[in-house]
Amino acid sequence: MTDRTGQVAVVFLSQRRAGDDDAYGAAAVAMEALAAGQPGYRGVDSARGADGFGITVSWWADEAAAVAWRGHPVHAAIRDAGRADWYERYEVAVAGVDRSYRWARGGLSE
Amino acid sequence: MTDRTGQVAVVFLSQRRAGDDDAYGAAAVAMEALAAGQPGYRGVDSARGADGFGITVSWWADEAAAVAWRGHPVHAAIRDAGRADWYERYEVAVAGVDRSYRWARGGLSE
Repeated sequence: MTDRTGQVAVVFLSQRRAGDDDAYGAAAVAMEALAAGQPGYRGVDSARGADGFGITVSWWADEAAAVAWRGHPVHAAIRDAGRADWYERYEVAVAGVDRSYRWARGGLSE
Repeated sequence: MTDRTGQVAVVFLSQRRAGDDDAYGAAAVAMEALAAGQPGYRGVDSARGADGFGITVSWWADEAAAVAWRGHPVHAAIRDAGRADWYERYEVAVAGVDRSYRWARGGLSE
């Protein structure tokens, strides 16, 4: 229902290492809850396959909100833990949404 | 290794319906192969979890390449099949990459 035009998408692509699933899962939940409380937060979408490759997109009202989230001290601490333990590699792309559209079965498209 | 700054990201978020996995899998493979042959193609990343929610990001050299891909007749035909059979809902966001960075274990970051 949300038109995301004008929002900033932070696309996080990551390859998980095997193991430490409980700690990782707890951190992932904590990160999403933390993000949701930040100014300018507009949602998060996440998927990870059985091969351990995952994509998370967090949506922000503007560039300033995305930058503030990057600099959040708890986010930074969890990023350090990710580098130390959880990820084999990751990539981040920060992108301004030029247009968006959606479709849903039953006609909830816009 | 690739800096994606200046590229256009087409972020496709979708909820699969149960069933028809063989046809869907074949179409997904065909779509990736087709995309890879288009002018301005710069890669694709995809993840789908056990709950059927998936995110695919295709990367394009510029806006014109992303728009051409949207209008490709085979892409359009597969999109119709997706609406008819495979998806419960989906969302697309087209976004221009302002900056990107990456990290890899062992120091392949840039």
